Amino acid sequence: MQLVIGNKNYSSWSLRPWLGLKMAGIAFEEILIPLYQEGSKAEMLKYSPTGRVPALLDGELAVWDSLAIAEYIAEKFPDRQLWPQDAAARAVARSVCAEMHSGFQALRTLCSMDIRARRQVGLTPEVAADIERIVAIWTDCRNRFAGGAPFLFGRFSWADAFYAPVVLRFVTYGITVPDDAQRYMETVLALPPVQEWIEAGRAEPWELHF
Amino acid sequence: MQLVIGNKNYSSWSLRPWLGLKMAGIAFEEILIPLYQEGSKAEMLKYSPTGRVPALLDGELAVWDSLAIAEYIAEKFPDRQLWPQDAAARAVARSVCAEMHSGFQALRTLCSMDIRARRQVGLTPEVAADIERIVAIWTDCRNRFAGGAPFLFGRFSWADAFYAPVVLRFVTYGITVPDDAQRYMETVLALPPVQEWIEAGRAEPWELHF
Repeated sequence: MQLVIGNKNYSSWSLRPWLGLKMAGIAFEEILIPLYQEGSKAEMLKYSPTGRVPALLDGELAVWDSLAIAEYIAEKFPDRQLWPQDAAARAVARSVCAEMHSGFQALRTLCSMDIRARRQVGLTPEVAADIERIVAIWTDCRNRFAGGAPFLFGRFSWADAFYAPVVLRFVTYGITVPDDAQRYMETVLALPPVQEWIEAGRAEPWELHF
Repeated sequence: MQLVIGNKNYSSWSLRPWLGLKMAGIAFEEILIPLYQEGSKAEMLKYSPTGRVPALLDGELAVWDSLAIAEYIAEKFPDRQLWPQDAAARAVARSVCAEMHSGFQALRTLCSMDIRARRQVGLTPEVAADIERIVAIWTDCRNRFAGGAPFLFGRFSWADAFYAPVVLRFVTYGITVPDDAQRYMETVLALPPVQEWIEAGRAEPWELHF
């Protein structure tokens, strides 16, 4: 399998499937296409009909979009338990992933992922509402499903992968959260694949200006 | 089970899980909350932590977001085969649903669902690109996976449910498409549950102005 991704410093959507694969110990080849360069789109169109990253290639099959990739990996490697095993927990894990997938536009626009930067922004009411909702999701999932274990649903799941870029944004933009959410952020930041991604992002030569 | 939805004339996201449940012959109770009225948000927050529709209630469990609801229904009623049975077809079906879920912002903004209206809009390049991509999706899915049967993946699947509101938008805004895409639109429009939804939408008393 090959995972087509964008720059690690900037591409939040690429991080999600990459992190799930790494945490599950699934071998894959990485194809990195720097975003917003001349020819980026044409290069991405070789792998995905949307011309966007991420895309997963498995032989002749191209699967695009982070959520579809997550489901494909979960089905292909059921023993890795990337979705919670309990049906109710799994339904909520998918709900929070889908909410991330289509929502939080204000946060995504004002606080785009830029791992190596440290930046202060004035929080608009819309961004503040997004942050409040994200903290509520983390708190609710951990209270109902984590059973004292460090991740949102106890063991690592796609839900953690989907919120990992949010953790990185909160660091970049100096966004403070309550203690339990802060501990959750530290858990995510300490994961070896997250550290590996951060270091690779920092070392990238490309600079985008937002 | 109970499905919480918005107005049928306007709520494209509500139509998706509603249509899947109806096409699969799964019994459910409908809870309709008119959108953008005084108290709409408070009413929706009773059922879903996002304060948005759709939400599915199954006993104590609330599942929110159309994609998570689709996966929950598919898992709970596997015999209804709401995802294609072939793994590659299923991966592509999920890819096109996820692409709809997070994309096509231009079309969704300029051509919001308004079933009973007939309206001409000047197509911006962005909307034209969205339309072109949607037609390409329909054509590609039908060529690769339909085997001559009328739906995107042969028999009705979540992919058809996810693109049904697009069919209704194309009618409202008089958007013309190539013949095969037109035949696909007619297939969707002729489905008895789609007709039922359209008639209910037309009969609703609420008027929103975009």
